[in-house]
Amino acid sequence: MTILVTGGAGFVANTLVDSILSRGDSVVCLDNLCRGTSANVARFTAKNSFRFSVVDLADLDAFRSCLDSHADLGPISEVWHLAANSDIPAGIADPSVDLRDTFMTTFNVLRIMEERKIGELLFASSSAIYGDLGDQELTESTGPLFPISNYGAMKLASEAIITAAVEKFLGRALLFRFPNVVGLPATHGVILDFIRRLRSDPDHLDVLGDGSQRKSYLHVSELVEAMLFIQPRAAKKVDAFNIGPTDAGIFVRDIARETVAAVAPGARLKFGTDNKGWVGDVPRFAYSTAKLSALGWTPKLSSLEAVRRAIGEINGQENPP
Amino acid sequence: MTILVTGGAGFVANTLVDSILSRGDSVVCLDNLCRGTSANVARFTAKNSFRFSVVDLADLDAFRSCLDSHADLGPISEVWHLAANSDIPAGIADPSVDLRDTFMTTFNVLRIMEERKIGELLFASSSAIYGDLGDQELTESTGPLFPISNYGAMKLASEAIITAAVEKFLGRALLFRFPNVVGLPATHGVILDFIRRLRSDPDHLDVLGDGSQRKSYLHVSELVEAMLFIQPRAAKKVDAFNIGPTDAGIFVRDIARETVAAVAPGARLKFGTDNKGWVGDVPRFAYSTAKLSALGWTPKLSSLEAVRRAIGEINGQENPP
Repeated sequence: MTILVTGGAGFVANTLVDSILSRGDSVVCLDNLCRGTSANVARFTAKNSFRFSVVDLADLDAFRSCLDSHADLGPISEVWHLAANSDIPAGIADPSVDLRDTFMTTFNVLRIMEERKIGELLFASSSAIYGDLGDQELTESTGPLFPISNYGAMKLASEAIITAAVEKFLGRALLFRFPNVVGLPATHGVILDFIRRLRSDPDHLDVLGDGSQRKSYLHVSELVEAMLFIQPRAAKKVDAFNIGPTDAGIFVRDIARETVAAVAPGARLKFGTDNKGWVGDVPRFAYSTAKLSALGWTPKLSSLEAVRRAIGEINGQENPP
Repeated sequence: MTILVTGGAGFVANTLVDSILSRGDSVVCLDNLCRGTSANVARFTAKNSFRFSVVDLADLDAFRSCLDSHADLGPISEVWHLAANSDIPAGIADPSVDLRDTFMTTFNVLRIMEERKIGELLFASSSAIYGDLGDQELTESTGPLFPISNYGAMKLASEAIITAAVEKFLGRALLFRFPNVVGLPATHGVILDFIRRLRSDPDHLDVLGDGSQRKSYLHVSELVEAMLFIQPRAAKKVDAFNIGPTDAGIFVRDIARETVAAVAPGARLKFGTDNKGWVGDVPRFAYSTAKLSALGWTPKLSSLEAVRRAIGEINGQENPP
């Protein structure tokens, strides 16, 4: 089986592609290298069953040509669409970023799938589609869906055109709604940000917001495990799954403290005064993963354990021996 | 007050603009004349408080220049964004239609509103965002939102970027979720289609689908009345309102029978076999308007009464004396 992975040089793809190749399938990885790096796929490039191309998926003609160049690997039977802008503040400052890198990549993935009769789509959606519903428990059928960032908006917009595509031509689509995900290779996110700032100034760490934002964290290894668990077990033609830890998440102040303890134990923490780190930051959410639990999967790591493990891993990434 | 109405030469705008001008405000109407016609705004053009331009709102530079040309009317204080592709099957056949005319027009309206610090957005959303949830009652917080047409998908996508814009810069946004709306000037829809086909062949009427599709209908005069009722009464910075009749809708077979009785009494009806008229057609839905009722507004006409009135009106439009 040949599988297309978009955003293939990015953070989540790195673990996913490893799993897919290990079970014997072939992978075509496409990435615009906006956040991902060629180094992330270096360990796969020697394999005959792996192909990598740098292409802007928002450019439909380039996307088509690129796939044609890998036609000898056989027809593609499923697409993992992970490509997206992952820098939420950047997308708020300039809405064309999420339009192009998140929404138009999905729009074009669907055009390609219709043209080439590819039946199965696995989509990296996000808890950000739920917006800020306060303490309301967020199940897969919670509404209203009023995202508060362009990132969340373009993920919801992507879900919407995917479900319309299922009505018309797609065989099946699974919408995986990610929590905050941590691990290697870190390309963005609060832990990487804290570590980099502590390495340049080991005495101080300024935290955006008052540290009271509470978020669910999952380790990337468990995220990928969950998606591969769901895929053969989901029964509907289109369905959404919240993926996350079973706890209520951890506070940003605790992430800061854990990072300081591991990286620069003497650093003084300085917090802001707002309960949001930035415009579009969801201060807290209660993420229900009951549907995934009912299907038979729960993570082994808590939010705190996932964060601790990631701090160690990312500190190693930033400080190679 | 100067108000911008997009899709200003279209069906719903025709009644809305009349109401706005009647209360003494000025209106800048923009339309690409894809469905709307200049004839629809002819009755307003003699007024000093009315301006009309033909422009493609998906072209941001053209949109800006066009607004600049009407700057002497004073700064715009609110936008009624009604522009959209309204031909659902066309958007299913070619997804770029809804992308351009529904989604990118919303994206650009938001850019304009941010640039020009316009605080209030009234958006023509749709019951199509709910997809096909069978007999489940559709309230404003029902989920999951899995639209089954690109029309519904791009309306939901538009809602999503609007709510993100409220977080960043918009003062307020109201999302009006329309049912099927009928009345004059008819530019599209099942009644116009039936009447045109009966006028070309008064002996037969072929109905798409088996006629069992059941839909809620509202007369355009009541839709506009409802929106203008909600606007000063809605309390939140962002909110959605289902607008529709209080009944469960009427069957397509009854619309066909009513039209035949009024237009070509001898015609024989022929039904299809599918419970959907076309891909993306939602066969039935239970639309809750309890939130709007609680605010204090209910329509006077039932779905059947709205359809009967529209059949008479549209027959007159197609057969001028």
